[in-house]
Amino acid sequence: MKTYPVNEAHRLETGQLNMPPRLLLGPGPSNAHPRVLQAISNQQVGHLDPAFIGVMNDIQEMLRYTWQTSNPFTLPVSGTGSAAMEATLANLVEPGDVVLVGVIGYFGERLVDMAGRYGADVRRVERPWGEVLSLDDISRALDEHKPTILALVHAETSTGALQPMDGVAELCRAHNCLFLIDTVTSLATSPIFLDEWGVDAAYSCSQKGLSCPPGASPFSLNERALAKLDRRQGKVPNWYLDMTTLANYWDGKTRSYHHTAPINSMYALREGLRLVVEEGLNERWARHQANAELFWEGLAALGMSCHVKEPANRIPALTTVRVPDGVDAKAVAGRLLNEYNIEVAGGFGQLAGKVWRVGLMGFNSRKENVTLLLAALKEILL
Amino acid sequence: MKTYPVNEAHRLETGQLNMPPRLLLGPGPSNAHPRVLQAISNQQVGHLDPAFIGVMNDIQEMLRYTWQTSNPFTLPVSGTGSAAMEATLANLVEPGDVVLVGVIGYFGERLVDMAGRYGADVRRVERPWGEVLSLDDISRALDEHKPTILALVHAETSTGALQPMDGVAELCRAHNCLFLIDTVTSLATSPIFLDEWGVDAAYSCSQKGLSCPPGASPFSLNERALAKLDRRQGKVPNWYLDMTTLANYWDGKTRSYHHTAPINSMYALREGLRLVVEEGLNERWARHQANAELFWEGLAALGMSCHVKEPANRIPALTTVRVPDGVDAKAVAGRLLNEYNIEVAGGFGQLAGKVWRVGLMGFNSRKENVTLLLAALKEILL
Repeated sequence: MKTYPVNEAHRLETGQLNMPPRLLLGPGPSNAHPRVLQAISNQQVGHLDPAFIGVMNDIQEMLRYTWQTSNPFTLPVSGTGSAAMEATLANLVEPGDVVLVGVIGYFGERLVDMAGRYGADVRRVERPWGEVLSLDDISRALDEHKPTILALVHAETSTGALQPMDGVAELCRAHNCLFLIDTVTSLATSPIFLDEWGVDAAYSCSQKGLSCPPGASPFSLNERALAKLDRRQGKVPNWYLDMTTLANYWDGKTRSYHHTAPINSMYALREGLRLVVEEGLNERWARHQANAELFWEGLAALGMSCHVKEPANRIPALTTVRVPDGVDAKAVAGRLLNEYNIEVAGGFGQLAGKVWRVGLMGFNSRKENVTLLLAALKEILL
Repeated sequence: MKTYPVNEAHRLETGQLNMPPRLLLGPGPSNAHPRVLQAISNQQVGHLDPAFIGVMNDIQEMLRYTWQTSNPFTLPVSGTGSAAMEATLANLVEPGDVVLVGVIGYFGERLVDMAGRYGADVRRVERPWGEVLSLDDISRALDEHKPTILALVHAETSTGALQPMDGVAELCRAHNCLFLIDTVTSLATSPIFLDEWGVDAAYSCSQKGLSCPPGASPFSLNERALAKLDRRQGKVPNWYLDMTTLANYWDGKTRSYHHTAPINSMYALREGLRLVVEEGLNERWARHQANAELFWEGLAALGMSCHVKEPANRIPALTTVRVPDGVDAKAVAGRLLNEYNIEVAGGFGQLAGKVWRVGLMGFNSRKENVTLLLAALKEILL
């Protein structure tokens, strides 16, 4: 082959990686647990190595515990949370399927967008950003649209609202409709009972409640969802996320090659899940609730308030704080980052400039972080 | 909300991660460089943090050097190599487009499968596994099929064959056809000159020549490819890999949120690329070639041969070794793994049972690894 002189134009010389010591109290990523960061730096083995198969089995079983499901088809997708979200729709939606999406914030909008790309006839049932849907809202929308799939966001990270799930599965069964939920911000931070709730498909991420870096994202289907996948005509229109072929890698028997798994992200996920198992779900949920309440009380003492009025409808891991009148939300977030190394996020969409989004999730849900953030806010605002 | 007792059935108790010290001499993943494993365990920052934007810029610029391109649109996809492969087709293929794929092994077959899922009218130009296409083969196929896109695999990891690229771009220009190549196994191991070769779209992975864990995968489009993307009707039918929206995160100006990037995989990729920049491309290519030749000579001395006859058509980073008559390929690979902690892979498809696939890539392309593998093979086979 012909050769050419090497072009040195883009030969950028850089220093060693030197990241600031941020405390990540935004909507995610949240700081990884130190044990997770030790695990992720283990040397790789091959993705078909018997030793890695043990890692895969561990992850699957601990994910079942964390989600409270016995679904055999529970595994991590090789991408960040959005890839797991897309995996549910890519596999379950067939062109022309009516998909009803509960839109109470940005992530509902994203489900609408994604489902449309897979040919769904998308319908919406909505509430303003910060509210949740009532069982009546959902019931009326199911009656009206008669969907094949109902998709709800359990913890709407853009608004701080936690969608109640009681009674939804019964309605879905009555309408012969699959029930899909987004648990990106709620997994391992709020009570979730996939099986008791009658959820057919769910997805999450690694960088919030599980205290891992982003990169490998939980995904689960029950038999009703798998039956729909089994009946589908033609290939899943997404190769990377095609569960009909990925199944042979994760099924515990065949372990046949599909794509190279992100080995080290799996190491991290295993360690994050071990921490959940060690702590116990009840204790973990209670810790998130207690630190959230501590933060809410501290906000009230500073004369500030939460965007989601009803405490029962607030996501324990993610609080939307109302920006006081006359305060520049962006400037405050900038000072927190630059002076205190604390990341919080602003609002967007309907809540742009109106709220800060504050995450206390996984490893970061600790009393000292609440105390520090409140003290820093006090220094900046008062 | 109703609560339930926590089901303890799946509360698996496991020990600390304890992986065997494998030397990964298969087709990938290859062992990460120790400096990369230090980098990956750095604490995260947010994906919109100014400090992370510096990491993104570094990666993009060093990727341009490594691929020898000045394409502004050069970035890592948030998944393993197959996701980057899919990203090229998802963005560039519109339903009905004729896509001509050079099929000289499994990864050509995968391109056929993926392109079909995006509605392409897929045509093939083929050679048996282990051979490469001649410029005449390609010219005749372009004349016959008049494709919109020609996709070739530069380094066909399933066969060990390195596809020559001389003259292909000129034919593509004459046919007004985009030229797409797979450089999964060749990036940072064999000479690649994306711009000089007239390549319009390319993808790769992190876990081979770049000595990183799998998880963030290089992707590049030039202006001709971007012009096709710009002309496409309707949304890209894949949300996660949609470059029209991801562009706003990676463009160096807007940095607007699309999905949470796999932060730590980006730290790793940055360090892997720094190692390329420090070594220099000419030196790196020469190292891979020299260690491959050392291995080929050692094989000959053991009475063994390479599946790809012509040395110029062999991938320096990945050799397919013919399994001697009467030898059980799987048993030998099993002994290498269990007795020596060395991973090599078998063949599959047309080469099942007929070859071993031996990778000497990135950090692992070192003389001592050649010596060890040859000595271990000698102990097992002679």
